[in-house]
Amino acid sequence: MKGTFVTFEGCEGSGKSTQLKLLAQKLDEAGADYILTREPGGSAIAERIREIILDGKNTAMCDECEALLYAAARVQHLKEVVIPALDAGKLVICDRYVDSSLAYQGYARGLGQEYVASINSFALNEYPPDLTLFLNISPEAAFARKHGADENDRMEQLGAEFHQRVYEGYLSLAKKYPRIRLVDCSGSKYETSQNIWRILANEGVVGASR
Amino acid sequence: MKGTFVTFEGCEGSGKSTQLKLLAQKLDEAGADYILTREPGGSAIAERIREIILDGKNTAMCDECEALLYAAARVQHLKEVVIPALDAGKLVICDRYVDSSLAYQGYARGLGQEYVASINSFALNEYPPDLTLFLNISPEAAFARKHGADENDRMEQLGAEFHQRVYEGYLSLAKKYPRIRLVDCSGSKYETSQNIWRILANEGVVGASR
Repeated sequence: MKGTFVTFEGCEGSGKSTQLKLLAQKLDEAGADYILTREPGGSAIAERIREIILDGKNTAMCDECEALLYAAARVQHLKEVVIPALDAGKLVICDRYVDSSLAYQGYARGLGQEYVASINSFALNEYPPDLTLFLNISPEAAFARKHGADENDRMEQLGAEFHQRVYEGYLSLAKKYPRIRLVDCSGSKYETSQNIWRILANEGVVGASR
Repeated sequence: MKGTFVTFEGCEGSGKSTQLKLLAQKLDEAGADYILTREPGGSAIAERIREIILDGKNTAMCDECEALLYAAARVQHLKEVVIPALDAGKLVICDRYVDSSLAYQGYARGLGQEYVASINSFALNEYPPDLTLFLNISPEAAFARKHGADENDRMEQLGAEFHQRVYEGYLSLAKKYPRIRLVDCSGSKYETSQNIWRILANEGVVGASR
């Protein structure tokens, strides 16, 4: 594996999309050889799975089914998009990866780490990220920031208590996996973007001069 | 769990659909309190997952993704359809269940029993069938019998060698799990139907007088 695999994680409304746009601008300016992709989705088959997962009408979906669909979309996206790009020596930036399942399904849904890790064993054991950046902002602050939420999105319909468990799940994962770094999000979006670039530079993923 | 859970397994073209129709007629005549359902599918969400699995255009689907989608459809169908019917004391007849994944993905696709069992742990450990009937007919004989195969079905497009591995997988599973009974399919479809009824009667699932 010649490339570098960097994943971004965060709670709903953590500003992840905004930060990834800002990061892409900087990577473009730096002339980096990278791809920016996302989960669930990122390939034709994975996008079809994504539609089922996020469809607000699927209220009858059980937790195990949800976790298995995420794992299915993940491995397909991994094999179709991520692995070929890594093999080609690219930097792969992925919006959500296996830690999302561990935090959302494992912790917040209560399915447990062991079960979620077992159904994601290929991703977790064969293709762990080189570096994972967690946007460290509490659910209360994240919700306050978020505008234009999609009411039909099944994940958005969940309550504050659920998202608090997701947040605590991420903090617990960060203690377990040294590859996970907490990003200080207390300043402006531009300050957060600088914090992200600084971490990537310290790890040698990008040049330092941004 | 007050009901009885009986699953049917077999290779492509084994006459499973025909046998299930004949069985349903006999159960109707006997006034049995039963449901007949199928995998993958059997509930609205599971049917949407089924569409993705069987879509002949999805040639890029990797083996792990396929196995996870089957497991996702299974657990959803189990919780929405099978468990409520069992709790209501019904006889549940299911066309394919976890043994299909063990034979097709575990053996024939080469993903291994351990991996396939782990992603199907809920079905395998919490809701194993009370009885599983495997229609014991070799792939050659099954293919010779089968008419009107759907060329757009992704599972039908696989070669003879694959289906031979599926068959051997089932025979191996029958040695491992005493709940799996081999059904003699060497006679006419009516003789096979009688063989099935005899096994069900011997196990006390149905009355003997058919």
